[in-house]
Amino acid sequence: VGYRLAELAALVGGRVAGDPGRVVTAIRPLEAAEPCDLSFLNHPRYRDRALTSRAGALLVDEAAAALVAAAGARDLLVVADTPLAVARLLGLFHPAPRREPGVHPTAVIEAGCEVSPAAFVGPYAVLGAGSRVAADAQVHAHVTIGRDCVIAAGAVVHPHAVLYDGTELGERSVVHAGAVLGADGFGYASSGGVHHKVPQTGRVVIGEDVEIGANSTVDRATLGETSIGAGTKIDNLVQVGHNVQVGRHCILCGQAGIAGSTRLGDYVVLAGQAGVGGHLELASGAQVAAKSAALSSVPAKVQVAGIPAVEMRRWRRQTALIAKLEEMVRRLRAVEKKVGAPQAQEE
Amino acid sequence: VGYRLAELAALVGGRVAGDPGRVVTAIRPLEAAEPCDLSFLNHPRYRDRALTSRAGALLVDEAAAALVAAAGARDLLVVADTPLAVARLLGLFHPAPRREPGVHPTAVIEAGCEVSPAAFVGPYAVLGAGSRVAADAQVHAHVTIGRDCVIAAGAVVHPHAVLYDGTELGERSVVHAGAVLGADGFGYASSGGVHHKVPQTGRVVIGEDVEIGANSTVDRATLGETSIGAGTKIDNLVQVGHNVQVGRHCILCGQAGIAGSTRLGDYVVLAGQAGVGGHLELASGAQVAAKSAALSSVPAKVQVAGIPAVEMRRWRRQTALIAKLEEMVRRLRAVEKKVGAPQAQEE
Amino acid sequence: VGYRLAELAALVGGRVAGDPGRVVTAIRPLEAAEPCDLSFLNHPRYRDRALTSRAGALLVDEAAAALVAAAGARDLLVVADTPLAVARLLGLFHPAPRREPGVHPTAVIEAGCEVSPAAFVGPYAVLGAGSRVAADAQVHAHVTIGRDCVIAAGAVVHPHAVLYDGTELGERSVVHAGAVLGADGFGYASSGGVHHKVPQTGRVVIGEDVEIGANSTVDRATLGETSIGAGTKIDNLVQVGHNVQVGRHCILCGQAGIAGSTRLGDYVVLAGQAGVGGHLELASGAQVAAKSAALSSVPAKVQVAGIPAVEMRRWRRQTALIAKLEEMVRRLRAVEKKVGAPQAQEE
Repeated sequence: VGYRLAELAALVGGRVAGDPGRVVTAIRPLEAAEPCDLSFLNHPRYRDRALTSRAGALLVDEAAAALVAAAGARDLLVVADTPLAVARLLGLFHPAPRREPGVHPTAVIEAGCEVSPAAFVGPYAVLGAGSRVAADAQVHAHVTIGRDCVIAAGAVVHPHAVLYDGTELGERSVVHAGAVLGADGFGYASSGGVHHKVPQTGRVVIGEDVEIGANSTVDRATLGETSIGAGTKIDNLVQVGHNVQVGRHCILCGQAGIAGSTRLGDYVVLAGQAGVGGHLELASGAQVAAKSAALSSVPAKVQVAGIPAVEMRRWRRQTALIAKLEEMVRRLRAVEKKVGAPQAQEE
Repeated sequence: VGYRLAELAALVGGRVAGDPGRVVTAIRPLEAAEPCDLSFLNHPRYRDRALTSRAGALLVDEAAAALVAAAGARDLLVVADTPLAVARLLGLFHPAPRREPGVHPTAVIEAGCEVSPAAFVGPYAVLGAGSRVAADAQVHAHVTIGRDCVIAAGAVVHPHAVLYDGTELGERSVVHAGAVLGADGFGYASSGGVHHKVPQTGRVVIGEDVEIGANSTVDRATLGETSIGAGTKIDNLVQVGHNVQVGRHCILCGQAGIAGSTRLGDYVVLAGQAGVGGHLELASGAQVAAKSAALSSVPAKVQVAGIPAVEMRRWRRQTALIAKLEEMVRRLRAVEKKVGAPQAQEE
Repeated sequence: VGYRLAELAALVGGRVAGDPGRVVTAIRPLEAAEPCDLSFLNHPRYRDRALTSRAGALLVDEAAAALVAAAGARDLLVVADTPLAVARLLGLFHPAPRREPGVHPTAVIEAGCEVSPAAFVGPYAVLGAGSRVAADAQVHAHVTIGRDCVIAAGAVVHPHAVLYDGTELGERSVVHAGAVLGADGFGYASSGGVHHKVPQTGRVVIGEDVEIGANSTVDRATLGETSIGAGTKIDNLVQVGHNVQVGRHCILCGQAGIAGSTRLGDYVVLAGQAGVGGHLELASGAQVAAKSAALSSVPAKVQVAGIPAVEMRRWRRQTALIAKLEEMVRRLRAVEKKVGAPQAQEE
């Protein structure tokens, strides 16, 4: 299948500069694109690649259009927001594979579990009593869903994900392979040299349009709920502790971790391998830099970095000063010499 | 079901201050509790919440009892150790769901694998020859157990956990979903530009009353055993390398990692995202702070922090001094001016 | 079975010092070895253990041979490279268990999936249409392989690993339990307060002789391929982001992570819990120390450490200077006193 640039422009709310009738059959990166392809320029640093690309047409924003137009003729699809347009057009050219509704004969569905006839349940899936799988949901091979769970309409659970009893997954949310929702929180009462398990009796509630990456884990609450707000996106190998409340539209990057009972507002960002201590509050818009550890609460819209994390600008200054420590020692020694102070044994 | 406070007091070794006949039907957090519920005050900072809670009764220790008693009548269940009592009572009100003994017809049990008639084996579990599942053990859906494994009495293996050949799981130990015990250790002999695999021929032995979190991994030994001592608790996404020896009653928090051949004594604590280098010794009671990296051995009962980790108090001082670097530079400049030293180009 | 030292020497290209006819029946560590065993001395620090070991024979290199020979008679197998010889002999004494070819009757193989009669497919494996499993490959219990995947000759996929659609696994490569290859990359176009999913339409291609640890994740590319070069070894719980290119013979240790679109040359080493930012280049032979974060590109053969990572030697100096900050403050104060500068409020 191919699309005329004019059609694509209508779809993404852009305009064509050049031949609106040009047909493109795929989206490809600049280096791989052929004359039948649409490619895109999403950063000025790639301008040279764009100019030498064999792509038949380029998706650009107004600024990038000027960059490449200066260098000669090229059919352009000009949009306000390149990444957004790329996202939409990739979806057009590569529609997500969806399985036909129906329950595979090898699926084990306990009595009292309700599966919509418009849902897909794959081979060897196991669904517990009291659970409900809504229309257009997809429960893939080997998924294990406990008792009293909800898989809302349009949700997708990839192979081997595990939902413990009582977990709720919102509409259109996606859980990737190997993710575990609702395992016991890490809670013990230590007494007499023994760590006595605190029964984890709560559950996990995931909002709408959430995505949870492969092999990530979200623990059930001790009492009440661990919750992930609508629109939040969680990468792979992320740990969310018991009783954590994650707001809406947060971004938790790969291998980030949140200790128990911490609350995140909306639009909070944890960069890769970031950690957040327990019983804290990260207000809306707070951001924790990669590899940093937020060990105290963070006000709204504040970026923090370091271990323990401090305000980003302060962290940058400290890092710069640490890089100058050698020079400081030299200067101190010079002053000591000048004033005849006893010099320390340094080496 | 409900319980009179007097009954609960007998169970947890406490006393009732108020009406011993008051019946409570659930334990709920302060904010959610109703007059039919028991709630608890486990930190003085929550005193105000306790006073405004609608809970019919409160579980408190002697100090907390004084705090809330001062503010008026309330039925109290007074104990020596609040968290321990909460743990016990949660177990009373929320008994852990245990499956009825029996082997699901879809389980694949190789010839020569011995399953107690008092054990539960769930749908699609696969158990290898020479393995043994003892009484009251629960092997949930999709668990894969290799050959010559032991699942001791009362042990629980949650869905999708994998035990490679030869793994031993002690009595009452719990393995959460997706955990992998006994995969090959990461060992190669590099020669001529090629990393030759060192066959990992040992195994994993887990003691009694151990809990292992979701998607955690414990590698088999190159030779001999990787071992986890009785009573040790391991959170989610933790990595334990080959030939590591973890002592008894240790606590390994989420995303912590231990490189190969390191030994931990008893009661060692690794906080969240902590790392420990290979071939080290962390003596009993040693603690590694969150996000820290122990790159050398740690003596008994010593707390370390930082990268590389140093004694906690030293790390605190260093962190405080780093925060004052800017001020130090100013002071240095002032002294330089005073003595007429040549000032460095700073910015 | 037992082997004469002369046979073993021929196999590993070594020589016997002592009785070439001595028969050994196992390889054991120094402490556990009996007179019928071969043990090995791979570091001078273990010389005393070697001398008191009950092992019948010792595998040593020339330097170690001198160390132990000085202390009296012992049959020695002397080689140029002890770890390499240990690797080969462990493989001799402990041949890796390989399942007999054949497809378990419970495996679900979609129409259009081609499985070699010389391959093993275990219980409850699920293989999608268009996929191909070559001779001598082993697909273990519960493995889920999507559509259009390739499992090349001799490759091993351990229980519960998941390969999403289109994933290619090279000859003799090994994927451990719970690893997930080809899940969606973490890509969103944020607009109007919503994170719109960027469809991840590429795939994952794993070269030959690669090993991927338990519960590690390698994301599919947005467009094109995420690729892992031949001979690269990846430990447990490692995250490889979308569009990452990992070269040949790299070593990625436990819990390391690489953000999207970064390229690693050949022989790159990421130590445990190391992180690498997105869109970077780590040239061949670059090394990132444990717990460090490479947030900018690293030239060939350069070792970096710290957060953000700097050249290793610089990081060591900085770390040493941070340890001396307390002393520097004292010296600064002394100078201030001497010159009568106003002293800051320090405590």
